[in-house]
Amino acid sequence: MKTNKEYISLIEDGGIFSYSPARGTFILPPNGLLLWSLMKEYLRKNFSLLGVKEVSMPCLIPFSLFNKEKKHIQGFSPELFHVQSEPLSDNHNHREDMDLVLRPTSEVVFYEWFSRILKSYRQLPIIYNQWCKVFRIEKNIKPFLRNSEFLWQEGHTLHSNSIEAEKFAFQIIELYRKYVEEFLCISSISGLKTECEKFAGAVKTYSVECILPDNQCLQLATSHFFSDSFSKTFKVEFSSQENFLKNPFSTSWGTSTRSIGALALSHYDEKGLVFPFDVSPVQVGLIKYRSDCKIDSYVSLIEKEISKHYRVKVYEKSSSSNLNIKDCDKEGCSFKVIIGKNEAENQSLTVCTRISNEKEVINKELLISFIEERKISFSKFLKKKSLEKRLSSTFEINSYGDFIRIIKDEKKGFFIVPFCNVEICENNFKKNFSPLSFRCILEKGFAIEKTCIFCDRKSSCTAVLGRSY
Amino acid sequence: MKTNKEYISLIEDGGIFSYSPARGTFILPPNGLLLWSLMKEYLRKNFSLLGVKEVSMPCLIPFSLFNKEKKHIQGFSPELFHVQSEPLSDNHNHREDMDLVLRPTSEVVFYEWFSRILKSYRQLPIIYNQWCKVFRIEKNIKPFLRNSEFLWQEGHTLHSNSIEAEKFAFQIIELYRKYVEEFLCISSISGLKTECEKFAGAVKTYSVECILPDNQCLQLATSHFFSDSFSKTFKVEFSSQENFLKNPFSTSWGTSTRSIGALALSHYDEKGLVFPFDVSPVQVGLIKYRSDCKIDSYVSLIEKEISKHYRVKVYEKSSSSNLNIKDCDKEGCSFKVIIGKNEAENQSLTVCTRISNEKEVINKELLISFIEERKISFSKFLKKKSLEKRLSSTFEINSYGDFIRIIKDEKKGFFIVPFCNVEICENNFKKNFSPLSFRCILEKGFAIEKTCIFCDRKSSCTAVLGRSY
Repeated sequence: MKTNKEYISLIEDGGIFSYSPARGTFILPPNGLLLWSLMKEYLRKNFSLLGVKEVSMPCLIPFSLFNKEKKHIQGFSPELFHVQSEPLSDNHNHREDMDLVLRPTSEVVFYEWFSRILKSYRQLPIIYNQWCKVFRIEKNIKPFLRNSEFLWQEGHTLHSNSIEAEKFAFQIIELYRKYVEEFLCISSISGLKTECEKFAGAVKTYSVECILPDNQCLQLATSHFFSDSFSKTFKVEFSSQENFLKNPFSTSWGTSTRSIGALALSHYDEKGLVFPFDVSPVQVGLIKYRSDCKIDSYVSLIEKEISKHYRVKVYEKSSSSNLNIKDCDKEGCSFKVIIGKNEAENQSLTVCTRISNEKEVINKELLISFIEERKISFSKFLKKKSLEKRLSSTFEINSYGDFIRIIKDEKKGFFIVPFCNVEICENNFKKNFSPLSFRCILEKGFAIEKTCIFCDRKSSCTAVLGRSY
Repeated sequence: MKTNKEYISLIEDGGIFSYSPARGTFILPPNGLLLWSLMKEYLRKNFSLLGVKEVSMPCLIPFSLFNKEKKHIQGFSPELFHVQSEPLSDNHNHREDMDLVLRPTSEVVFYEWFSRILKSYRQLPIIYNQWCKVFRIEKNIKPFLRNSEFLWQEGHTLHSNSIEAEKFAFQIIELYRKYVEEFLCISSISGLKTECEKFAGAVKTYSVECILPDNQCLQLATSHFFSDSFSKTFKVEFSSQENFLKNPFSTSWGTSTRSIGALALSHYDEKGLVFPFDVSPVQVGLIKYRSDCKIDSYVSLIEKEISKHYRVKVYEKSSSSNLNIKDCDKEGCSFKVIIGKNEAENQSLTVCTRISNEKEVINKELLISFIEERKISFSKFLKKKSLEKRLSSTFEINSYGDFIRIIKDEKKGFFIVPFCNVEICENNFKKNFSPLSFRCILEKGFAIEKTCIFCDRKSSCTAVLGRSY
């Protein structure tokens, strides 16, 4: 995967992406939305175990509300789409109080709402999440990885005390890590963001990051602990069990359709998309080798039987069965079942898996056990490949000299360094080495008792550097 | 239900609606979104039997694309939200090609996409649907019934021939009719729209309409047959089996969160919301009569057991069990289960249904059969009530004199009249009798061999008049 054009072909021919006319927006064709729905299903199931309830908030927000949180508005201001509720005209009188924006994220609407509905400690914790669209003006568009309009989920919670809130933010990042590693089979690193890289308004930001084939880093999910700062700004209060008026402590967390791009780029091969079996939009593809009455009715029979268990698609867009096989491979279908004259006569099936690609002729009764035996091999194979990729792109660096050499060699990837985690040192780093940035700080690391490679202070942590999307 | 304020209290205290700061937008709290999810689930199941596949289209659309379909833009132009992709400034240079709007509906993005992806008859029919938000500037806001931002579903289909497309539009309106009558238990009428009331650009528009407590009419769902007009405008073409280039015939159809408002207004009583059992966000409410260790653990046990079968909520926001009972009733919970000292000691439950309100003490093992035996009574009772309401608000009118008398008496409701269905007569009617309008034309009716009451032409159909939201 070298060019942007090849990436677009991969996801467009793979049926998970289509351009749409407004710059930075996209269409999710059936397989693309199905992929997102499968990701949703996994997350919803795990969220609900943590007591998450779903709500729906509006896209349109008064700009004035956004202005309440100074740090927050600084973080998002250049990216905001402004909306006019009257038709455009040359002598348009702009009324401040009517000015609307499209949400880039929904903190401000959630907190304005919380300030109206929260009264008593009996209502806490409030653990809400919404699946929705958000809007941010992006200059550098890359489908799924950077868009102006995209789908995501954003959770917002209120807790009666700080410890519970901070714990919740951590539980969520652990859930995301498992989602990325186990469900998407993408090898990742996760940890805290540094002072400069934290979310606008947060006390702590955790993130899960992965590495793409071009060795650039991608942030896949974040979880923020806000302390009671947002609650204070928006006057969210509750009367405690002891009848004191208190501000709740809060978190927010999200992951987006970015995962679709990461999934595509992590697992593709020369034939097209490849997916872990559980997240594959098409698990079984049926292809007719030539078409006649007998073959057609045999295919219908198999389709009916197999779709009780798996997501099935008959590939027949083209009149050429070879082109249909190619379509099936491009879409990352896990098992191809080819049916021609011989198969119809013998009640057999020619079966082939997407990753090994060896053909086997089996009795039709054996298809389900054939799939059941082999489906786990997808995640094993993809996890291993992804881990190898990450490890081969990860470099431990112990001195400033080594760091400069690796930059001069134009190496890209995760650079693991001992770091002081002092803001002034980080700002210096940003001035000199942008677009390289701190991706996260690892909980445990090799940097204990070492020296920060940028300032000679004692290192307080292990930091991960990389170029990000 | 007389005032708007009482309506707001009904849905706000009922936990299905909250105001949000931008005018005409709203928040769906957990029960509100759950209600919408249950409606979605019913429709998705039935859509999938018709071969519907789900896709996701962007909210942001270039205004220029909207300008392609003249009739369509005429229908929506005043309602469009315009979006600026750069921050507002006084000497803002407006660039036509960059001007974006928020979709009021998605025909134009779908057809622009179809023109790129459709090649061969082998791809037809294309039967796509999306669940999404749409945006329309509304002057008269009424929660759920008229909003500037709301949730809906919009289906868009392409067919190789006119007959199949027209049949599909009709199948969908039948599905909607069943959804409104059987699932929501709301008595309705359905039929074709007149020339003036059709959707901008459609050849035929079908609608399902109901009547609300104030005797105003509400359009709950529509299905449009477009012929090949949209395909021609957007150059959507396919090569037929005989290798000719043809334009496909198309339909679109939708229903929205309006249904939530209709549901609330159709079935409420003096205590709050009432729902058919299947669509009730809370099917079983547990209320503690006083709280101690023994009662708490008994309630937890019941909650755990019953939530395997039904949607359950423990009402404990207030320290007063009477207030908790009131909350439970406001939210339209179908079965109240009250648990106090006696119940905990005797392993019994005090149970009460939302519609009969008689209390009964039963052994805890009998709760499920108690519910199973009574759950059907909700839809029976609500359907009967809704039908009676509709019939008592429906008036058959056979002459212009009778029509004028009923107007002078300030009667409201469905007025059934013999009608010529000629555009000039309808335009005349609109001039004289707005806000009264033609709601739909009934397929069969009593008007055969009669005279149009407005122009003395022979009546060609039975028309339904009413005041609409």
